[in-house]
Amino acid sequence: MKQNTAGNNQYLKQRNKAQVLDLIRIKGAVSRTRLSELTGLSATAIGLITSELIKNSFIIESGAIESTGGRKRVLLELNPEACFSIGIDFDIENIIIIVIDIKSSTVYENKTPFPKEKKIPEILKEINLKITGILKELQIKKEKLMGAGFSIPGLINSKEKNIIIAPNLNWHNIKLLEFWKDISDLPAFIINEAKASAVCEHWIGSCREKNDFICINIKSGIGAGIFTNGRLLKGMSNFAGEIGHVVVDENGPLCGCGKYGCLETLASTTRIVEKTRRIIRQGADSILNNTPDADNITLDMIIDAAEKNDLTAKNIILDSTRYLAIGISDLVNTLNPEKIVIGKEFVKYSNLVMDQIKKIVSSKALKYPLADLEITASEFGEKTSALGAAIIPLQKIFGRENV
Amino acid sequence: MKQNTAGNNQYLKQRNKAQVLDLIRIKGAVSRTRLSELTGLSATAIGLITSELIKNSFIIESGAIESTGGRKRVLLELNPEACFSIGIDFDIENIIIIVIDIKSSTVYENKTPFPKEKKIPEILKEINLKITGILKELQIKKEKLMGAGFSIPGLINSKEKNIIIAPNLNWHNIKLLEFWKDISDLPAFIINEAKASAVCEHWIGSCREKNDFICINIKSGIGAGIFTNGRLLKGMSNFAGEIGHVVVDENGPLCGCGKYGCLETLASTTRIVEKTRRIIRQGADSILNNTPDADNITLDMIIDAAEKNDLTAKNIILDSTRYLAIGISDLVNTLNPEKIVIGKEFVKYSNLVMDQIKKIVSSKALKYPLADLEITASEFGEKTSALGAAIIPLQKIFGRENV
Repeated sequence: MKQNTAGNNQYLKQRNKAQVLDLIRIKGAVSRTRLSELTGLSATAIGLITSELIKNSFIIESGAIESTGGRKRVLLELNPEACFSIGIDFDIENIIIIVIDIKSSTVYENKTPFPKEKKIPEILKEINLKITGILKELQIKKEKLMGAGFSIPGLINSKEKNIIIAPNLNWHNIKLLEFWKDISDLPAFIINEAKASAVCEHWIGSCREKNDFICINIKSGIGAGIFTNGRLLKGMSNFAGEIGHVVVDENGPLCGCGKYGCLETLASTTRIVEKTRRIIRQGADSILNNTPDADNITLDMIIDAAEKNDLTAKNIILDSTRYLAIGISDLVNTLNPEKIVIGKEFVKYSNLVMDQIKKIVSSKALKYPLADLEITASEFGEKTSALGAAIIPLQKIFGRENV
Repeated sequence: MKQNTAGNNQYLKQRNKAQVLDLIRIKGAVSRTRLSELTGLSATAIGLITSELIKNSFIIESGAIESTGGRKRVLLELNPEACFSIGIDFDIENIIIIVIDIKSSTVYENKTPFPKEKKIPEILKEINLKITGILKELQIKKEKLMGAGFSIPGLINSKEKNIIIAPNLNWHNIKLLEFWKDISDLPAFIINEAKASAVCEHWIGSCREKNDFICINIKSGIGAGIFTNGRLLKGMSNFAGEIGHVVVDENGPLCGCGKYGCLETLASTTRIVEKTRRIIRQGADSILNNTPDADNITLDMIIDAAEKNDLTAKNIILDSTRYLAIGISDLVNTLNPEKIVIGKEFVKYSNLVMDQIKKIVSSKALKYPLADLEITASEFGEKTSALGAAIIPLQKIFGRENV
């Protein structure tokens, strides 16, 4: 707010440029005339801005032409070579690296096991080396890489952007961005994995242009990325979305957080696997009894059995999602979202349980906020957080920062 | 967004004027130099804007002078005679009418029993007559009244602003604003009572300048007004905040909404009274046994007994707030608010239960979002929704609309 008039003008010019670029992104391909209509800026102003954007290689005149009966209009679109961004998701078992272009199209992706035995600076050094290799392979100049976004399964505080706690990585008070600065001069950002998923769904997924929606990620933990009034909800200290620790059964099992019956003790995939192994050990009737050692039963095996109509497997999965549905009902009553997208490992068994989830939510949530609610599985599967993290460094260009 | 350049300039001028007026409101009294610093607008621009605001009687030069060691500066403040607004709260048992000035100071208030036997147009006609009387009494010219805000204990849909349902008034699909138009040309607005309370706390109460907070109203029902990212949360269809229907005990009593164990079936004041009457009828040990008829026991009598350390009364109140605390814990994990303000009838017994609420929330919510959380009782008591409703018509002048 504290700007002189020259500063104000500069700010407005920057803002107009970002707005034009963002409209080109949203529309895919758009004429100068339409940009003028959409922004309220004069044809001259749009002419100047688009010339500058073309000169700086952010946009190109596409081959396509818009005909409106009268004059034919050249369409503008983002230049896929303009710039790139990288997303790195510390996904507990794996590190997922994704490179996207300015259009958020994936140009590279890779998944390697998480090296749990290594220290964080060592892991970051390896990632930095890998980035250099990727850029070489893709023939991308270093200066075209806008930055790196790290997606973390834990709490990131709002001021220092430190990792307060990432329980499933056993990380406490980790200054990841400071470690990174010692290794690389590539601008880096950090975001909670569920918030990253919400950014991804809002930018390129099924929640584009939606103002109020919730992304729920289910894996060994459960977290939510929430958008309200068109913006990512952070709350006072950036900890909003910890729905995995909403108590859904006071008599439920002990959670890592020290309380009993948290949603994630009853509906995480770790819980599904643990419960199945226990029940199989106890001699339950199931085709999973054919597994030599119950300790080797995996989520995929359980889903496979459930798909073959194995009642034990099916009931365990359905039982876990019953709690999820209760949690969702509370979110519907509290936040009245347009859409709920459930992602990560949930995607693997969503078609087994989605009908039941919708049925329970219909019976638990109030009729009115339910009316136009959509509940779907994420279309991005396990990649959603890496994509969201990659989108963060790009958003600045479009004047649409979430982090 | 669709504006020509002239439209744009006009819009910017309006916005600057509203911003200056809002700063004067927030600061109470402020010099032109400080306004220029705070807005980034030139001294000339501030001079023009403030002259116009003085000419139109929105602001006055206050007697006070700010001395900064150098030149003495005249301070500007809102002109309390500038304009007025009226809030009408349909508070189930009563209709509360409050008139405020541009500074949101109360200049008139009145409470009359809700005439349940009368039809809505009749009630509105009487309110309109009353307004005419109040204006006469206060010697306020009709054109100085900016509008009326109606606060309703029910769901208001976002498009038509109709009352979808107000269960405790037994209202369904009521087009209150259309009835009003037939009666009066005073601009009218409508808002849910918990959302109105949140607007009140944000504008003049303990949540001024807070971005993320929750106001919970407890009476015969329970509802929340939620602010996220500095804005009132409406959700997809304006139904956000229905926390009274979050299920806190699946085995709990049947709720008016058709489900079991909703928060308001366990923590509303109606529930406290009902439970006490039942237990007294069953012969529980309590000083309330002295009441000739258990059906005449009121909330005030129960609070009075609890304050005299009557264990039966005390336990019933504490038991109801245990569920409230569970509901609050979930909100803390999900939304990470800075502050939670509990209002309406809760204010009457807040000092009996606040310590227990804080203790339970500390044991149920995650440690990190809890860290800087404040939980308090509202300072406005039963008037909060009427005040919030009165604030709505005023906000337009300051460019800060919530409805």
